[in-house]
Amino acid sequence: MCCVLRRLQSKLPQISFEILAECKHTRARTGILHTPHGDIETPVFMPVGTQATVKGLTQRDLAEDLGVQILLANTYHLYLRPGHELIRKHGGLHRFMSWPNAILTDSGGFQVFSLSEIRKIREDGVVFQSHLDGSTHKFTPESTVDIQLAYGSDVLMVLDECPEYPVSHEYAREAMHRTVRWARAANDHFLCRIAEMETRHALFPIVQGSMFSDLRRECATALLDLDTDGYAIGGLSVGEPRPLSLEMVEATEDILPRPKPRYAMGVGMPAELPEYVARGIDMMDCVLPTRNARTGSLFTSEGRVIIKHARYKDDEGPLDPKCTCYTCVSYSRAYLRHLFQSGEILYSVLATRHNIQRYLDIMREIRHAIKSDSFPEYLRSVRSASDEAE
Amino acid sequence: MCCVLRRLQSKLPQISFEILAECKHTRARTGILHTPHGDIETPVFMPVGTQATVKGLTQRDLAEDLGVQILLANTYHLYLRPGHELIRKHGGLHRFMSWPNAILTDSGGFQVFSLSEIRKIREDGVVFQSHLDGSTHKFTPESTVDIQLAYGSDVLMVLDECPEYPVSHEYAREAMHRTVRWARAANDHFLCRIAEMETRHALFPIVQGSMFSDLRRECATALLDLDTDGYAIGGLSVGEPRPLSLEMVEATEDILPRPKPRYAMGVGMPAELPEYVARGIDMMDCVLPTRNARTGSLFTSEGRVIIKHARYKDDEGPLDPKCTCYTCVSYSRAYLRHLFQSGEILYSVLATRHNIQRYLDIMREIRHAIKSDSFPEYLRSVRSASDEAE
Repeated sequence: MCCVLRRLQSKLPQISFEILAECKHTRARTGILHTPHGDIETPVFMPVGTQATVKGLTQRDLAEDLGVQILLANTYHLYLRPGHELIRKHGGLHRFMSWPNAILTDSGGFQVFSLSEIRKIREDGVVFQSHLDGSTHKFTPESTVDIQLAYGSDVLMVLDECPEYPVSHEYAREAMHRTVRWARAANDHFLCRIAEMETRHALFPIVQGSMFSDLRRECATALLDLDTDGYAIGGLSVGEPRPLSLEMVEATEDILPRPKPRYAMGVGMPAELPEYVARGIDMMDCVLPTRNARTGSLFTSEGRVIIKHARYKDDEGPLDPKCTCYTCVSYSRAYLRHLFQSGEILYSVLATRHNIQRYLDIMREIRHAIKSDSFPEYLRSVRSASDEAE
Repeated sequence: MCCVLRRLQSKLPQISFEILAECKHTRARTGILHTPHGDIETPVFMPVGTQATVKGLTQRDLAEDLGVQILLANTYHLYLRPGHELIRKHGGLHRFMSWPNAILTDSGGFQVFSLSEIRKIREDGVVFQSHLDGSTHKFTPESTVDIQLAYGSDVLMVLDECPEYPVSHEYAREAMHRTVRWARAANDHFLCRIAEMETRHALFPIVQGSMFSDLRRECATALLDLDTDGYAIGGLSVGEPRPLSLEMVEATEDILPRPKPRYAMGVGMPAELPEYVARGIDMMDCVLPTRNARTGSLFTSEGRVIIKHARYKDDEGPLDPKCTCYTCVSYSRAYLRHLFQSGEILYSVLATRHNIQRYLDIMREIRHAIKSDSFPEYLRSVRSASDEAE
C-alpha cells in the first residue's frame, strides 16, 4: 500500500539523460548521462571490474589517468565473495573499492547461466550452485535488486534469463516472457525500496528474445510499460555470428524510447563499437579489452598486435605510435614482449592500461564525429580499415 | 698495454660517496652516493627488479610515488632473457625498462649457484645450464663485466662463488680464494673496458668466506688492493641463523675502508635493516618486501599482517594507519583481503606498493635517527618491538 503512494514520488528521474547531438544519417547520438556519481559522456564504453577491480589497474589509474567515468561490476561474483552484506556494511561498493565515479552492476543472471553448472529455473527465480564452492543459492527478481542496492550501484539491472545460442523459438519465447515478468517484479520491488532511500539509483530492464526479431520486438514493447530510466539489450555475444548481434539491436531501435539511454550488454570488438552506436546504442561493456590484454592481444590504431610474436622481440617502437597512454609513452614493444614472455605482472598492468585507453579513445572519436557531423564518414573509415585487416 | 695507461686515467671515481653524519655509538653512518643516474641517500634499501621490473609496479610508481632512487636487476635472468645484446641495442637497461634512476646489477653468480641444477666451477669461470631451457652457458669474471656494461649498470658486481650453507672451512677457503682471483680478473677487465667508455660505472668486489670470520677477514683484506669504489658482502641469507649473518658483517667492518660504501647483499627483514646499518652497512637489497607482499605477508608499523586471516575479512581500517602510501590511504584491509582471496592482480600491485613503502620508511627513519644523533635509541626501540612481536 505504502508503495503505491511512494511510487508516484519516486518517479523523479533517478538518473537523467541529455542528448547533445544526433547524427542525421544514422541512429547515433551523443549526450550526457547524469548520475549520483558524476556525469558520463555517451556513447560510453564501461570497463569491466568483475570482482570490484578492473584486473591490473588501480582505481586511481582508472579515474585519473584513463578518465573512466563509469565501470561495471558483477553482482554474481561479489554476491558469492565477499558478499553483499559485507559490502553494504562497508558503505557500498564505491567506498569498499574506493571508486569515486559511477558503477553499473549486472543482475547476475548472465553469470548464473554461464558459470554455474547446476541451475534450475523456476517462476520466481533461479536456484544455482556457486562455481566457487558448490553451495546452493537462489536469485529472484527482488533479491537481485536488494543485492545491487546493498552495493549502492548507480545503475542496476533486472534479473533476466539469457538462453544459450542457438535455442528454439519456443524456448526463446518462454524465456523472454519470464524475463518480462521478472522485470515487472524487479521494478515493483525497486520502486518500493528506493521510495525509502535517500540515495538515487536507476534500474534498467533487459530486452531478450535470442536471435528472433519478433520476440525482441515483443519484449521491448512489453518493457515500455515499466517506464524505466533506461533500457538494456541482453543476450548478445553468446556465440552468435556478429552480424546477427547487430541485427538484434536494430530490431528494437524504433521501439525503445529515444530520450532514454540504451545499453548493449557485453559488446564488442573495437570495430564494432561504432556499429552499435550507429544503431542507437549509448552504453556498452565488454571484457575484451582487459581479457585480451592479459592474453597478449593488444588493440592499436594500426590494428591488432599479438605481442608474443618474434617480430616484436627487437622492436624499439611504442605499442601504438598514436596513443598517449602511459604504456605507449614510456615503453617499447620489445620491453612489453619481454614482460609477457617472462610472465611478469607488469605486463598485464601495462597492457590493460593501453587496451582500455584504446577503447576510450575510440569512444572519444565517435562522440567527436557525432558532434562534428561526420559520423557516417567515421563509420566508413572504420569499416574500410576493418575490411583491410581481414 | 693501452690498458695500463688508461688505468691511471680511469681511477677518477666512477661513483662517489659522501658521508654526512655518523653515529657516535655504533658504526652507522648516513650519506649520499653520487651516481651517473642521480644521488642516493644512504643507508638505502634497493628494491629488486629481477627481470627488469619490480614485480607489479610501474617505473613511474617506483620513481615518482615511492621515491626509489636505485633498484637492483639480475644479470643472470636478463642475460638468459631477453639477452644483454638486445638490451645493449636498446640503449641499455635504463632505456629498455624506462627507468630514470640508478641501477645496480649483481654478477649472476648467486643465481647460477641457486637456480641452475647443473653447473661446473672452473678456474676461469662457471659453466651452467639455463633454468629456462637447459641450454649451456659460461660466465667468466670478464664476461659478466661485459654483460653488465651492456646493461649500462651504474654499479656492477664481480663474479663470485657463493657456497651453500653449511660448508667445510676447507671448501669455503678454496671458494673464497677463487672469488678473490675472479675479483682481480674482473677488475682488471673492467678498468680496461671503462677506459674506452664515456659513461661512468663502478664495480664492487664481494667479500665471501661462508660463516668463517677468519676467511671473511682474509677475503676483505685481499680485496682492499683493488681499491674499488665500494665493497659488497655476499654469501648471506643462504640458510644460516640470522645472528650469524650479522656476525659475518661485523667481522670485516674494521677492514673495509670507511670512506667507501658497503653493500650487504640479499638482506633483510624489517627489524634487521637497522642492525646492518649499526654494523656499518650503507646499501641493502632483498626480495622479501616484494615476494612476501605477493604471498600475503605485509609489513606494517604495527607488525606483520597475514592478509588472508579471517580477522581481516570485515576490517574497514587501513593496512597500516601510520603509512601514507597509496594503498593505505585508499583501501581497507577488507578490500585487500577480498582481492587476495580472489587472486586478483590488483592485490599484488597494492601489497607490493605498501611493502616497498614500508622498507623505504624504515630507511628514512634510520637516516633521520643518525642525523639527529638518536640512532642508538632508535635501534633499541626496534629491538624491543621485535622482541614483543616474538
